[in-house]
Amino acid sequence: MLSFNLKYEDRETKARSATLKTTHGVVETPIFMPVGTVGSVKTMTPHEVEECGASIILGNTYHLYLRPGIEVLKKFGGLHNFMSWNKNILTDSGGFQVFSLSELRDISEEGVYFKSHLDGKRFFMSPEMSMDIQRCIGSDIVMAFDECVSCDLERSYFEKSVNLTTSWAKRCKGVALDSHQSLFGIIQGGIHKDLRKRSAGEITDIGFDGYAIGGLSVGETTAQMYEITDYTTDYLPKNAPRYLMGVGTPEDILNCIGNGIDMFDCVMPTRNARNGMLFTSRGKLHIKRKQWEFSDTPIDSECQCYTCRNFSKGYLRHLYKSGEILALRLNTIHNINFYLSLVKGARNAIKKGCFTTFKKEMTEKMTIGGDNV
Amino acid sequence: MLSFNLKYEDRETKARSATLKTTHGVVETPIFMPVGTVGSVKTMTPHEVEECGASIILGNTYHLYLRPGIEVLKKFGGLHNFMSWNKNILTDSGGFQVFSLSELRDISEEGVYFKSHLDGKRFFMSPEMSMDIQRCIGSDIVMAFDECVSCDLERSYFEKSVNLTTSWAKRCKGVALDSHQSLFGIIQGGIHKDLRKRSAGEITDIGFDGYAIGGLSVGETTAQMYEITDYTTDYLPKNAPRYLMGVGTPEDILNCIGNGIDMFDCVMPTRNARNGMLFTSRGKLHIKRKQWEFSDTPIDSECQCYTCRNFSKGYLRHLYKSGEILALRLNTIHNINFYLSLVKGARNAIKKGCFTTFKKEMTEKMTIGGDNV
Repeated sequence: MLSFNLKYEDRETKARSATLKTTHGVVETPIFMPVGTVGSVKTMTPHEVEECGASIILGNTYHLYLRPGIEVLKKFGGLHNFMSWNKNILTDSGGFQVFSLSELRDISEEGVYFKSHLDGKRFFMSPEMSMDIQRCIGSDIVMAFDECVSCDLERSYFEKSVNLTTSWAKRCKGVALDSHQSLFGIIQGGIHKDLRKRSAGEITDIGFDGYAIGGLSVGETTAQMYEITDYTTDYLPKNAPRYLMGVGTPEDILNCIGNGIDMFDCVMPTRNARNGMLFTSRGKLHIKRKQWEFSDTPIDSECQCYTCRNFSKGYLRHLYKSGEILALRLNTIHNINFYLSLVKGARNAIKKGCFTTFKKEMTEKMTIGGDNV
Repeated sequence: MLSFNLKYEDRETKARSATLKTTHGVVETPIFMPVGTVGSVKTMTPHEVEECGASIILGNTYHLYLRPGIEVLKKFGGLHNFMSWNKNILTDSGGFQVFSLSELRDISEEGVYFKSHLDGKRFFMSPEMSMDIQRCIGSDIVMAFDECVSCDLERSYFEKSVNLTTSWAKRCKGVALDSHQSLFGIIQGGIHKDLRKRSAGEITDIGFDGYAIGGLSVGETTAQMYEITDYTTDYLPKNAPRYLMGVGTPEDILNCIGNGIDMFDCVMPTRNARNGMLFTSRGKLHIKRKQWEFSDTPIDSECQCYTCRNFSKGYLRHLYKSGEILALRLNTIHNINFYLSLVKGARNAIKKGCFTTFKKEMTEKMTIGGDNV
């Protein structure tokens, strides 16, 4: 079971810092959770993930259900043991992937029929099944099964969807998990404030160990995302962790920490790394550019990651242009380290009471652009 | 400059153990050199290569000449610094790749015109140019530029080729290298013993810091390869290192150590790892097989590598089947560790005077097959 200890609250913003504790260790918030889709944070060993400062990673229930499958995870006694990761794991409910990756799906009150994105095989997922799968995965934080709605649908659809998500949340709460597991509820409602308020009320009434804001970063504007986040956290209890799902850029994370969010996940640092896009204290840097051919300096002179301690931009560009796997690895280590350093910086600033200054300085510096030297 | 100190000679075979020393450290022989084609041992950081026990790696002059190119290597003061590898580097001369990768080439006494395998651009390579490039790379051991001939050509071609290789070897010897660099000559002659004897005589007459047997493992039978190796080492001086280029399987390496070889390189452990084929003390193992789905034991219970210390065959199979880059990494670490443990085992056996027993026991055990549990 999870304990949540709120330690610092910023005076100027809604930013806060807390300690979240489970049987797999302590997580200091605000925190970023690297995404380990099918049992590895892409390109990284669990030891490298830990060395970058990660205390919790995210696993994808949908992907793990398809591969390696529940029987394998049961045999290994869960994902921690299977992948040799002894710190915290949060699993999403599978809802997002069922709705975004599966072309054909059929939603009813009972659950969702969907076709595997791998082989088109037909599967069924219900709130109860999502809980069962996450129990087999053995994640420390289990997410309730919700409906994640595309932002371009009509308001009437969101109304129904909030009802369905509440109904499913109650069913999730009714399923017994392992004693070490905690369950988070998810708030839906799109960009409609009244629906967000209603969803937050209904989900917090059921009562969970933590609360997530879902259905953002799905096509709405950044301003809308910030506004809805800011609005929704007002209706969430102070003494429970708040998780903004699937967000976002370094700027998004700083802003949403200011809006009262404790936990983040996003594929951006890992995926962009594999595409040669690096995050730096001066903003984005594109390692494949000709301008780096002869550069003997690290990606970011302020960075202490393994990549920046050992390799130059010239070498990283060469590896990337040559299609070497080591390029993807070193880029990923850097980006994950950057994200984790960013939230660490935010935590320290909150503790010292200077979060607004930290956020302003970081955001301004990142507008320079990492390619502009 | 290189110093070579022959320490142990086996009584029953031609196996021997020596210490080879350069400004980048000591190499105990017999040794296997992992291949770092374009400035990385594929998928591995230099620190991982070192952790597997490597004291020397091989770089490919042809590949490095095309990418990143000489100007970049000059700017970085050589390959060691560019790739953050502080131990020894041996570079091939580019000859093998010019003859095997380039479809169109035009050989004359002067040198070879060839087309880049990357973009078809026309290049020229001569013995002098190969030396110049290898001087810029800064490798500790430089290989003479030779003609590597396909084994299915007529004897008359091999005769001419031996003449050309000798002529080029003299020109290579005439080019000044950096003071820390040593130069190895290469013996050619295909599977023709008299030509091998003549080539060995001509090349050793010129006089080099070490001698390589080239033009094997290019299509001849394994028995022919062993026989020519055994025959040729009789015409090489005892007090200089002997390098068998491009060889081979674990069994090949054990046999050719017995035939008096000190140094080996081969892409097999790295390339096969990326194809899911693992070397074990019981022979080859194919990690993608269904039989490993639920296996919670390591690849090789006798192996001490990072992969075997931390991960099960079931997890490795899952990663491989899921197309995860971590699979390629963990497989490569295991195979490189296996090759380096094999030559370490051979060194220890030579020192203890039990090389024949070691070779027999290892070879027999490897016939079991790693998939047969």
